[in-house]
Amino acid sequence: MIKHIGIIGAGVAGLHFGLLLRQHGVAATIITDRNPDEIAGMRLLNTVAHHYITLDRERSLGVYHWPVEEYGYSHHHHVFNLPQPLKFSGAFTAMSRGVDYRIYLPRLMDDFTARGGKIEYRAIGADDLAKLAARFDLIVVGTGRGPFGQMFEPVEEHSPFTRPQRALCVGLYTGVRATDPPGVTISVSPGQGELIDIPMLSFTGKVHALLMENVPGGELEELARLRYDDDPKKFRATLLAKLEKHHPAVYARIDGARFDLQRPQDLLQGGVVPTVRRTSVELGDGKLAIAVGDVHSVLDPVMGQGANIASYSAFVLGEEIVKAHVFDRLFCERVDRRREERVLGAQRWTNMMISPPSEDLLGLIGAMSQNQALADEFTENFNYPERQWARLASPPRIRHWIAEATARRGAAQLATA
Amino acid sequence: MIKHIGIIGAGVAGLHFGLLLRQHGVAATIITDRNPDEIAGMRLLNTVAHHYITLDRERSLGVYHWPVEEYGYSHHHHVFNLPQPLKFSGAFTAMSRGVDYRIYLPRLMDDFTARGGKIEYRAIGADDLAKLAARFDLIVVGTGRGPFGQMFEPVEEHSPFTRPQRALCVGLYTGVRATDPPGVTISVSPGQGELIDIPMLSFTGKVHALLMENVPGGELEELARLRYDDDPKKFRATLLAKLEKHHPAVYARIDGARFDLQRPQDLLQGGVVPTVRRTSVELGDGKLAIAVGDVHSVLDPVMGQGANIASYSAFVLGEEIVKAHVFDRLFCERVDRRREERVLGAQRWTNMMISPPSEDLLGLIGAMSQNQALADEFTENFNYPERQWARLASPPRIRHWIAEATARRGAAQLATA
Repeated sequence: MIKHIGIIGAGVAGLHFGLLLRQHGVAATIITDRNPDEIAGMRLLNTVAHHYITLDRERSLGVYHWPVEEYGYSHHHHVFNLPQPLKFSGAFTAMSRGVDYRIYLPRLMDDFTARGGKIEYRAIGADDLAKLAARFDLIVVGTGRGPFGQMFEPVEEHSPFTRPQRALCVGLYTGVRATDPPGVTISVSPGQGELIDIPMLSFTGKVHALLMENVPGGELEELARLRYDDDPKKFRATLLAKLEKHHPAVYARIDGARFDLQRPQDLLQGGVVPTVRRTSVELGDGKLAIAVGDVHSVLDPVMGQGANIASYSAFVLGEEIVKAHVFDRLFCERVDRRREERVLGAQRWTNMMISPPSEDLLGLIGAMSQNQALADEFTENFNYPERQWARLASPPRIRHWIAEATARRGAAQLATA
Repeated sequence: MIKHIGIIGAGVAGLHFGLLLRQHGVAATIITDRNPDEIAGMRLLNTVAHHYITLDRERSLGVYHWPVEEYGYSHHHHVFNLPQPLKFSGAFTAMSRGVDYRIYLPRLMDDFTARGGKIEYRAIGADDLAKLAARFDLIVVGTGRGPFGQMFEPVEEHSPFTRPQRALCVGLYTGVRATDPPGVTISVSPGQGELIDIPMLSFTGKVHALLMENVPGGELEELARLRYDDDPKKFRATLLAKLEKHHPAVYARIDGARFDLQRPQDLLQGGVVPTVRRTSVELGDGKLAIAVGDVHSVLDPVMGQGANIASYSAFVLGEEIVKAHVFDRLFCERVDRRREERVLGAQRWTNMMISPPSEDLLGLIGAMSQNQALADEFTENFNYPERQWARLASPPRIRHWIAEATARRGAAQLATA
């Protein structure tokens, strides 16, 4: 069977997916309305780090262009802004890495076409659906924009929120000193929100993404509306004052004289309603469209899971397509079953982290600050959100995790005593 | 963690499950209202064959008491009662075996208690629920009778029927000659129903289960209501006349003089509404009940999947229990995800076989009569209903299967030419 797969959207899901298909000799055509130059010139798209599990996929695709030794980081540094600040760090077993997607995506689009993938640059209207369905054996939808993205219904059971739980203000900044060892800082201002500080490669070199996740109604919320372009000085002063009060550990690494957005367009403000959607729709004539990435599951960015899950989900789909001869409902069901545990794990864990913490979760945070193995496993599990969720899904699970780690440490101490 | 699992019901699911737990040192208590002697003395329970995949589980549990060399069979013989009869046979790669459950279950109950399992013989009332939940870490429900069985809601999406699709009349008979090679005969009287003839070990030795699956409103339906005890002679005469007309290939192996029920109680009549149910319910205090076997998925017996699926599903649950430390919603979800493909595959395939056949299915039957590899794979897949369903789920899948098998045979002929 000669397969020809149509891909709507050239995000990380569409590109990793398309590259995987090409690696297996499957014909793949991406349709997108933005060419590489346009993407490079856009406002900040997001601030994404790829964990090693995603970097391994890049290696297998031959698109691992930015080595971790140069651009990566090895740790998560946790800070809780309490009267008695709580700090601990967890280590990954292999490094993660952040690259500005306005650099990343155009480069992978080149890789894709160099390997025989086709990209058609054009907008899709509602009247294109039937024509596209006729051209391809399967349509893979990797963008929520346009008529395909609208076709996938939310799954209520897995979509507990109707509005954003955080007011986001994320920018790429100069004048932030790196941590030692290099890492992401996850700073929590209890009741007010989180700041995720990610070392990242962008157009001017190494900068820092400051992803401010502000609780609606709290002291930090206004950052999601404060306009930089109207008054850059006021923006900086307001931001610095709030960082000093709510995220002092990050503030301490800022050089006020050099601190600024990398460029005025490197700021993104808004919010996300975490949503899981049905993943397949029938287009008529036996043809189906199947969702990957944000169209399938859009997450709050606080735990950095969205892009990693999109890449994972695209790989599962690609592997199944390579094996399959028929693209029907059962095919889609099989793909969903294979990717569901990780996709839902990421969504549920992330939703837990933007909800008021339970006593057990607070107990875990305390335990991680006293037990390196716990902190390391929590960090490592950013690669495996289904494992993280298996640790966190219910109070007995959290208590079991703490008890197990405590017993292990006790045994280790006895063994070396 | 010391785990103690409560099991409601001593069918094949409950027993295979309990034996697996004991093998791993997990405490297991079965609660049932029927002791081994009572089971041995009951009316016919069902007519079940274990495929080799289930026999492998028996071997791993050390309860493989009835060797296939003595009691097993190797083939499925298909006969279609058409003006020009269509006949073909498929071979298993390893033998199947049928043993009367009134012999099988009591023997495994002995095995279970010999290995430290406990059996409590008593009926359960609605007011026992809370007390039982408090005694065990998890309640596994393997019988639809009693208050636990009523708690699991049907899943509409997977339960397309509201009434039985076949009027069943199944008995254990003497006077039926075995096929050569030994096998199950699947005789189809188009529009009227199926007869499944299974060689089986029962109390008097080797007998034949004749499972008549009669289309409601058809010429065979009355067999599901015809009373043996009122007039055995009339019952026999009516049955023989209908076999002669509708299932002549089986009729030809009957010795009229010796043909009779093994014993008057060896007859079962009625019908099944194929139903898939939700698999877990909360009992309060964080305790859960989870379903296995018929409570989870009850199938029409035509494809002989019910008991094999029950054993499979019990093993998946048992393996997960051995690994788990916490029995919560996520635990049940994980179990369900692991067993879903096979459980749904068996249900959907079986439902297809008791629905009017599509043109493509008729085409497949024709192709199997001409292509041994196709017939063998169809037979082998009785062990792997998820593979069978992956072959049958949509018209393009059936056509692909036929085309693939035809091409393979063509290539083989060329190679030997």
